[in-house]
Amino acid sequence: MDDTICAIATASGASGIAVIRVSGSEAVAVCRKIFVHKSKSKDLASLPGYSICYGEIASRGERIDEVLVALFRSPHSYTGEDTIEISCHGSTYIQHKILELLIENGCRLATPGEFTMRAFINGKMDLSQAEAVADLIASTSAGMHKLAMSQMRGDFSRELSSLRNQLVEFTSLIELELDFGEEDVEFADRDQLLALATQIAELIGRLAESFSIGNAVKNGVPVAIIGEVNVGKSTLLNALVGDDRAIVSDIPGTTRDSVEDVVNLSGISFRFIDTAGIRQTADEIENMGISRTFRQLEQAHIVLWLIDLTSDPAAIDSAARQIIPHLKGKKTILVFNKVDLLPEADREQCRNIFPDISSDCLHISARNREDVRQLQQLLVSVAALPDIHSEDVIVTNMRHYEALLHAREAILRVIEGLNEQLTGDYISTDLRECSYYLGEITGEITTDEILGSIFSRFCIGK
Amino acid sequence: MDDTICAIATASGASGIAVIRVSGSEAVAVCRKIFVHKSKSKDLASLPGYSICYGEIASRGERIDEVLVALFRSPHSYTGEDTIEISCHGSTYIQHKILELLIENGCRLATPGEFTMRAFINGKMDLSQAEAVADLIASTSAGMHKLAMSQMRGDFSRELSSLRNQLVEFTSLIELELDFGEEDVEFADRDQLLALATQIAELIGRLAESFSIGNAVKNGVPVAIIGEVNVGKSTLLNALVGDDRAIVSDIPGTTRDSVEDVVNLSGISFRFIDTAGIRQTADEIENMGISRTFRQLEQAHIVLWLIDLTSDPAAIDSAARQIIPHLKGKKTILVFNKVDLLPEADREQCRNIFPDISSDCLHISARNREDVRQLQQLLVSVAALPDIHSEDVIVTNMRHYEALLHAREAILRVIEGLNEQLTGDYISTDLRECSYYLGEITGEITTDEILGSIFSRFCIGK
Repeated sequence: MDDTICAIATASGASGIAVIRVSGSEAVAVCRKIFVHKSKSKDLASLPGYSICYGEIASRGERIDEVLVALFRSPHSYTGEDTIEISCHGSTYIQHKILELLIENGCRLATPGEFTMRAFINGKMDLSQAEAVADLIASTSAGMHKLAMSQMRGDFSRELSSLRNQLVEFTSLIELELDFGEEDVEFADRDQLLALATQIAELIGRLAESFSIGNAVKNGVPVAIIGEVNVGKSTLLNALVGDDRAIVSDIPGTTRDSVEDVVNLSGISFRFIDTAGIRQTADEIENMGISRTFRQLEQAHIVLWLIDLTSDPAAIDSAARQIIPHLKGKKTILVFNKVDLLPEADREQCRNIFPDISSDCLHISARNREDVRQLQQLLVSVAALPDIHSEDVIVTNMRHYEALLHAREAILRVIEGLNEQLTGDYISTDLRECSYYLGEITGEITTDEILGSIFSRFCIGK
Repeated sequence: MDDTICAIATASGASGIAVIRVSGSEAVAVCRKIFVHKSKSKDLASLPGYSICYGEIASRGERIDEVLVALFRSPHSYTGEDTIEISCHGSTYIQHKILELLIENGCRLATPGEFTMRAFINGKMDLSQAEAVADLIASTSAGMHKLAMSQMRGDFSRELSSLRNQLVEFTSLIELELDFGEEDVEFADRDQLLALATQIAELIGRLAESFSIGNAVKNGVPVAIIGEVNVGKSTLLNALVGDDRAIVSDIPGTTRDSVEDVVNLSGISFRFIDTAGIRQTADEIENMGISRTFRQLEQAHIVLWLIDLTSDPAAIDSAARQIIPHLKGKKTILVFNKVDLLPEADREQCRNIFPDISSDCLHISARNREDVRQLQQLLVSVAALPDIHSEDVIVTNMRHYEALLHAREAILRVIEGLNEQLTGDYISTDLRECSYYLGEITGEITTDEILGSIFSRFCIGK
């Protein structure tokens, strides 16, 4: 934190302008060594914050570029430190040459997200706001953008923080009682504590539930395509993805581990999960693939179950017995494929043939554009994402979600303990645990490990 | 020119920061409609130039992003107009949303190079300096960068401009004489004019000659690989390009029409031109290919002539008869390939077997790394590019080169006319022509067509 960092903050490639960011106590001193003000009487060091000057970057008599230099003085900058932004011509040669000069003169190349980490450490934003910065940069749709903006505004963490402070206060009171253990005093009003704990449990529950929506908006509604081997899953996937195929690249700051097919349909992102075909087999390797299919099924909100009525009815039944137990809580669409191969009379079988599940039905030929469009419309109506209002607090971050689940477990134990009139030492342990996990979200509790894993997902220069 | 233009000026893609540029008389008025200053009492309109303010972009109550806005007031800006640069988070969604809002509120999307074109039209730089901006942005090596910086500094056009002004003065004097046609007066001192014309002819000659170096630095030293069919040209090309293969993409502002293999060897860029094999044939199509080979040969500075000594000596001779007339003024390297297939005793033939040309010789097996390295070293020593000093004026631009050639023709006719004591009306026509072409370089003479073709090669946002 004592050193001065630098990085290219704009996207890579040749362009009109590129911006190089320098932050740290030596930012002005380092830049003075390589920057010459156009009117030589003026000096960077004497400029006020929030001002720009024009001049050139030069080193050992060689002129590198004509640039604009913007100056921000601590604490009124993004990082809270002295910060300089150099706007140069967007040649890759110039960008790297300027970085080189900065490093020669005492800067260090920033690690991913290091500017934002410094902003967090210097108290310019809390941890969940810092995380929202990465989401904001990665946002490619109106929905993702809205969620990231709302989280960056900090409503989410402000609400958690205030409840957490009350919780910490109660915990201190209860722990104070323990010091007077033999006197049987009660500093913490148990009724008030119960009310607070109930309020927190409700809030946490609401937030944790919102994750399912938040994650769907951020990463796409997960849709699994399952069915027997050779039933046409890949063909269907290609038809659905079609010309709208959106290879979502691995942008730093998104939480996905692998690149999947994401398609925007009527403003909703769908993330399609292609799975291994299901069949009865003794082949061990193939069975491992099938087990994986069922694990993937767990993440899905919507299941497209593809059925080929021309195949052996016994095989259909056997697959159904394997699949049906995994459909609980999922929205299922039965899709009858290859319907063009069926005799006209048999097409009436294209209905929900499994009385144990509720499902929409549709028959398609993946080659028929009209059929595919109908399936896309059905997907949009089944997804039924609620409208998101900018005042809604919605959890989009897996780390927050996990912390909320832990916090909820702890606060439910507190409520249980209060109802069973357990002694203060039991309750205080659970209270501490709940505060710990809430604090992890806002960053009031952090470890180097948490910080490292959060900021490593940023891009360099932010 | 009356409207206000906007464009994303940074490279595309998700990144920490993106910059959107707005220029024109309405720049401040448009930005005020979508920007809210953080301290609401302050207003963009009252800020001085070269200052920055922090706030947010919002529209119809929806907050798009927190941004920094930099303000430049006419004429102290890049374009010479009121200019605003919005630094936003580098999300593609946000960038496009802000552009959308600017356009909704009265801006027009800028065409490629339009900011720089306005800078030229408003007298902030001359035309050759404007062109240097595109070269600067496209520069990827120290050599390209140095040439572009030197051109951007304007020494080149200042020198041309001053000589041109003297030329124009003389022209007026000569044309004044014509008004007094019958009185046989001489306002323009012929000796002085001859001295000036000679000086200009020398300068133009020197500049035009520098184009060969300038173009080699900018686009790579052109090397043609020629030889009979099946002699191993493509294998040699692949061996030379090797792991250093540099696919040079079609960056706006470079003059190349097609993408060729460019390799940096010891800091010199070589541009390899693969050609069709040469042989005697009656096939019309194939003969067209062979004619093209000879045309390509004209651009080359260096010719790698590949010979397979295991092939029919009559065929080698026949190819030689076709090739040798095209080698005048080129540096030639005879490369004997497939030498591993020759009996040891026959390898002594690997020398310059064509007494009519002077040439370096080398025998290689394209698969042998050591041989390839030797050939690369030979290329570097044959290329022998001079060291470029930053005070050197070197022409890198095809358009300038062509204008210089025309201007030279005209000024040589002036000198001839003066020596032959031609009358003023003859001389003044050639003087006008020379001034015209010199003026085209600096932009003192322009047509919409010239401007259009120059700036269309820029990237948008510059």
